Amino acid sequence: MWQSLLKNIVQGDFKALARAISFVENEVEGYEQFLSELPNSNTAVIGITGPPGAGKSTLVDALIAHWVAENKKIAILCVDPSSPFHLGALLGDRIRMNEWYTNPLVFIRSLATRGSLGGLHPHIIEITSLLQAASFDFIIVETVGVGQSEIEIAGLADTTVVVMVPEAGDEVQGMKAGLMEIADLFVVNKSDRPDADVFVRNLRSVLYQAKERQIETVVLKTIASSRQGIVELANAIELHQQQSSTSEKKVWLLTERVYQLIQQKKMQGIDKEMIKKNIAEQFNQPGFNLFLFAKQLF
Amino acid sequence: MWQSLLKNIVQGDFKALARAISFVENEVEGYEQFLSELPNSNTAVIGITGPPGAGKSTLVDALIAHWVAENKKIAILCVDPSSPFHLGALLGDRIRMNEWYTNPLVFIRSLATRGSLGGLHPHIIEITSLLQAASFDFIIVETVGVGQSEIEIAGLADTTVVVMVPEAGDEVQGMKAGLMEIADLFVVNKSDRPDADVFVRNLRSVLYQAKERQIETVVLKTIASSRQGIVELANAIELHQQQSSTSEKKVWLLTERVYQLIQQKKMQGIDKEMIKKNIAEQFNQPGFNLFLFAKQLF
Repeated sequence: MWQSLLKNIVQGDFKALARAISFVENEVEGYEQFLSELPNSNTAVIGITGPPGAGKSTLVDALIAHWVAENKKIAILCVDPSSPFHLGALLGDRIRMNEWYTNPLVFIRSLATRGSLGGLHPHIIEITSLLQAASFDFIIVETVGVGQSEIEIAGLADTTVVVMVPEAGDEVQGMKAGLMEIADLFVVNKSDRPDADVFVRNLRSVLYQAKERQIETVVLKTIASSRQGIVELANAIELHQQQSSTSEKKVWLLTERVYQLIQQKKMQGIDKEMIKKNIAEQFNQPGFNLFLFAKQLF
Repeated sequence: MWQSLLKNIVQGDFKALARAISFVENEVEGYEQFLSELPNSNTAVIGITGPPGAGKSTLVDALIAHWVAENKKIAILCVDPSSPFHLGALLGDRIRMNEWYTNPLVFIRSLATRGSLGGLHPHIIEITSLLQAASFDFIIVETVGVGQSEIEIAGLADTTVVVMVPEAGDEVQGMKAGLMEIADLFVVNKSDRPDADVFVRNLRSVLYQAKERQIETVVLKTIASSRQGIVELANAIELHQQQSSTSEKKVWLLTERVYQLIQQKKMQGIDKEMIKKNIAEQFNQPGFNLFLFAKQLF
């Protein structure tokens, strides 16, 4: 089964790819062996992130249209990080990409995080690797930039695009510190809003101050809803991938991935619900000590 | 040595406490045994977080002044999460608390994160437990709210205070999704700014919509620089600690801590720099496979 699955994936069979993703998601027996037989691939991953409401989905939709017109094959992974505090999934403005579901050049998959600590998805690395094996021209991973997910996306994507809306002009420096560091490209979407130019100027000046960056961070203006600035964005992404696919960055990305995979493996048997249950029974007893308790589970 | 150290810490000796923290930071032999002998303590931890420039340090300074006037003993842990991308530490607006360093009621310690993935500090849980053993009236952990650190602070603090400045009024919903979920109390600092009332109103309405929360999230206005609103804040923190120290929350917090401790232990031998070095040597070879490589390190 696995051998023909791999063959079909490499040949571009979307159904085989979808099935393999499900196998990985559900940890079907043999999936680890299967992953260790994936061919080495260099397809670059584009991470698109930013706050909810910034227009990420509309932007992705416009990028798909652009590349499909050029007859490119595109994979899109939509990841909705669920809340780490059980307040439900962080509103995803999905579903706008409907029209692409039947296009033979476009593969779309949504993943819901069931993990607990605000991460992207327990198997995001594996699933991205499956996409890389499937000979797409572009792979997009789209996610809301909250908490840990923005760090994870930076460890996953060769090009990280951060989408924002022109607001909060003078707070650029503060609020976006986390996003600022991971961005290879900045997109100021909805740039027909009144203060767009001020915002872009502030952003550029803040980026300029962060001189440690070796490569200049490009700031682009778009109006995704009317597809303005999309050609420029697509070009900037392609240019970034040509210029920045240095060995150094590649090694950094692979190291982050390996580290995550190891962590995932090592924590496999650790059941948070069970810990919780035991703590609930014991924490009120006089001799309770956090470190002694944890030690039993090492 | 350890026995008398513990005795001195419990009796309130700041020098002993500082020494024990250093031992934990440097993983001096015997520190794990020492931690497992700490008495069970219920001193609540107050987490104070928010973007750089929100005025967290000034606010903490004002809180110290308030509680010192009431003859309370206070510990402050300042954590600067270093950048996960090697762009240096995220600017801490520290050092404003200078005047307290010699006050016998106030213990201040700064920790710099040397960890790699944007977390608070590899030993933050242990160090907080040391403070809890030292019979303070209040323990404050102050940190910049970026990336993973905001999730970690929620797992560490009994009361999480999120400090913001009145700006970006209509973007409240988007940008602060992560912070919104962890906040037990919201402080809108610099509330003499023009749009403060609009901002507070927007914030309250967004919080109202998040009906899943069992306890109402309080929004307070302060001007920390002139110490306005500080009494109200101190009262709100104390009230929150009385009302919300439910078993459920306590169990959740302890579970998060135990989980972190286990993860830390399991990843102890894993050296990221070594992984990087090996990847750099191997990733260009034709047969290189990420999962095979990771498997050697499981």
